[in-house]
Amino acid sequence: MEDHRFLRALRREPVDCTPVWIMRQAGRYLPEYRSTRARAGSFVNLCKTPELACEVTLQPIARFPLDAAILFSDILTIPDAMGLGLSVEEGVGPRLARPVRTRADIDRLGVPDPETDLRYVMDAVRLIRRELDGKVPLIGFAGSPWTLACYMIEGEGSASFARAKALAWDEPATMHKLLDVVARSVARYLAAQAAAGAQALMVFDTWGGLLAPDMFREFSLRYLAQIAQTIQRDAPGVPLILFSKGANSHLEALADTGCAALGLDWTIGLDQARNRVGNHVALQGNLDPAVLHARPAVIRDEVKKALDSFGPHPGHVFNLGHGITPDVDPAHLGVLIDAVHELSAH
Amino acid sequence: MEDHRFLRALRREPVDCTPVWIMRQAGRYLPEYRSTRARAGSFVNLCKTPELACEVTLQPIARFPLDAAILFSDILTIPDAMGLGLSVEEGVGPRLARPVRTRADIDRLGVPDPETDLRYVMDAVRLIRRELDGKVPLIGFAGSPWTLACYMIEGEGSASFARAKALAWDEPATMHKLLDVVARSVARYLAAQAAAGAQALMVFDTWGGLLAPDMFREFSLRYLAQIAQTIQRDAPGVPLILFSKGANSHLEALADTGCAALGLDWTIGLDQARNRVGNHVALQGNLDPAVLHARPAVIRDEVKKALDSFGPHPGHVFNLGHGITPDVDPAHLGVLIDAVHELSAH
Repeated sequence: MEDHRFLRALRREPVDCTPVWIMRQAGRYLPEYRSTRARAGSFVNLCKTPELACEVTLQPIARFPLDAAILFSDILTIPDAMGLGLSVEEGVGPRLARPVRTRADIDRLGVPDPETDLRYVMDAVRLIRRELDGKVPLIGFAGSPWTLACYMIEGEGSASFARAKALAWDEPATMHKLLDVVARSVARYLAAQAAAGAQALMVFDTWGGLLAPDMFREFSLRYLAQIAQTIQRDAPGVPLILFSKGANSHLEALADTGCAALGLDWTIGLDQARNRVGNHVALQGNLDPAVLHARPAVIRDEVKKALDSFGPHPGHVFNLGHGITPDVDPAHLGVLIDAVHELSAH
Repeated sequence: MEDHRFLRALRREPVDCTPVWIMRQAGRYLPEYRSTRARAGSFVNLCKTPELACEVTLQPIARFPLDAAILFSDILTIPDAMGLGLSVEEGVGPRLARPVRTRADIDRLGVPDPETDLRYVMDAVRLIRRELDGKVPLIGFAGSPWTLACYMIEGEGSASFARAKALAWDEPATMHKLLDVVARSVARYLAAQAAAGAQALMVFDTWGGLLAPDMFREFSLRYLAQIAQTIQRDAPGVPLILFSKGANSHLEALADTGCAALGLDWTIGLDQARNRVGNHVALQGNLDPAVLHARPAVIRDEVKKALDSFGPHPGHVFNLGHGITPDVDPAHLGVLIDAVHELSAH
């Protein structure tokens, strides 16, 4: 399994063809997912029932020749385990019943024990590994401290997360206290996923790109680096992928955190990104997800352009630059995956 | 008036202190705006009634020592004048009743005559200039061809504008036909605003940043450059500000279009941006609008950091990196404006 092209690419070793997986590959664009989701009753219940989380994790692997599976879960499992009360309403998004607003709220937060407070995730990881039976590697994941703090403060999604930013400006020590407990929770959670069987780990810094450069360094990057250091110590040899969406001006600094790879959105060329980070890390990405709405011939063209842009170097994991959207025809994703393998084969 | 610090800064000439205006300065955060808006009945009616558009344009000028007024209007006046039927619902956003979906739809589009089809805008510009009576310069504006095409194809806002992008991929010639007629309409509309009295012009490329680099160059940048060239010819001496939100990887190319200034969002430092574009253009921006939710002392600190980041060079127009949001306390904007003037005074 160590020799699987996905893990080889993350180590920047030569591969027979470029590995590919897709963010949200287990998701609403698949009729079989919608069917399991309906049986689960709620999104949160789907995440919290290991058999169902395993079932949807494996669905895209059964349908497509993907090179990795990713645990079906949600980034807000950690705030939920901290007692904030997660619910997710279809079409509305996630909501935390008890957001943190004061220093006292934050002082009360503890680091969840993965094997007790998040046992359902660890059980799902173990079950998925058993069911995958060595077919492809399994990726575990978590949200970044900044992204989780945004939700924990606002209690829901927001266009600007102005309340979270105002706390960072007005009470930086309080914000750092929150980010520190979240960062320790994320690192422990990821290391536990690795111990349970995850062969690669990913951190989604979905809202890092909303920060001005100095704010990004102080309130997001610092904690991403802290997590990367902890993972190197507590899960040695398990590659970590960092994805700070919209934070392309910080690629060099992100590559210096000790992660194995950077996820990229589609607003930067793979050639440009590679020139900037050199051979320090692998790169994962980065087609515009909207390309899956184009004709199959266009999808193949765009795959070819992305492969050519990265060039004949080791260290590329193909992916979209953001999650696949619910309105995509699954056949179009099949075209993309086949094109990646065919057009990159040596 | 040619000597006003706002126009001097756009020409990169020395100023007594840094000029400042704020995107959406005439907007919902002001109680006097909400009152006029209620009288108007609808947002579209507010735009289409020159007396009311003039009234709200002048409200922030009466309240704050701002250095420029900006015409109160909407970027979708052009599609509306092309016959697409604009409505704007509070909390929902703009909607076009007759989106363009086919080549035949696009072939039917003509360039609106500003003095007849958009007469209400020209009348508003003339009225505002008269009422301003030389107090501060007036900025006219339009949406970018790519941004307008996005709305014209989708008929409403969208997280990804996948339908517009799919048209660009699947039928590039059709998309270019659309962008060309829109670009000619925008250039003619802006030149007419200048002829009616606007002393500076701005193009909002709100959705350019959603495009991958090659798509940005082909479907947005090319038409921004075409507009800049036309303005240089048809409105000589009237400075043009281009603002491509989220397109920071293209600053050098944007600066080469022939525009006078670039608007910047807050995800890049002013120092970094200045290093990249040199002295070719002035820069406008770029505080995170969320800073207006912080304490007054923090707002002053952040203004100081931005001024220091730009440095003691000519060519800075202070602004936010995006529009001011409805939930801001107007007193906080007052703190920001005063801080800009005080902390930059020579």
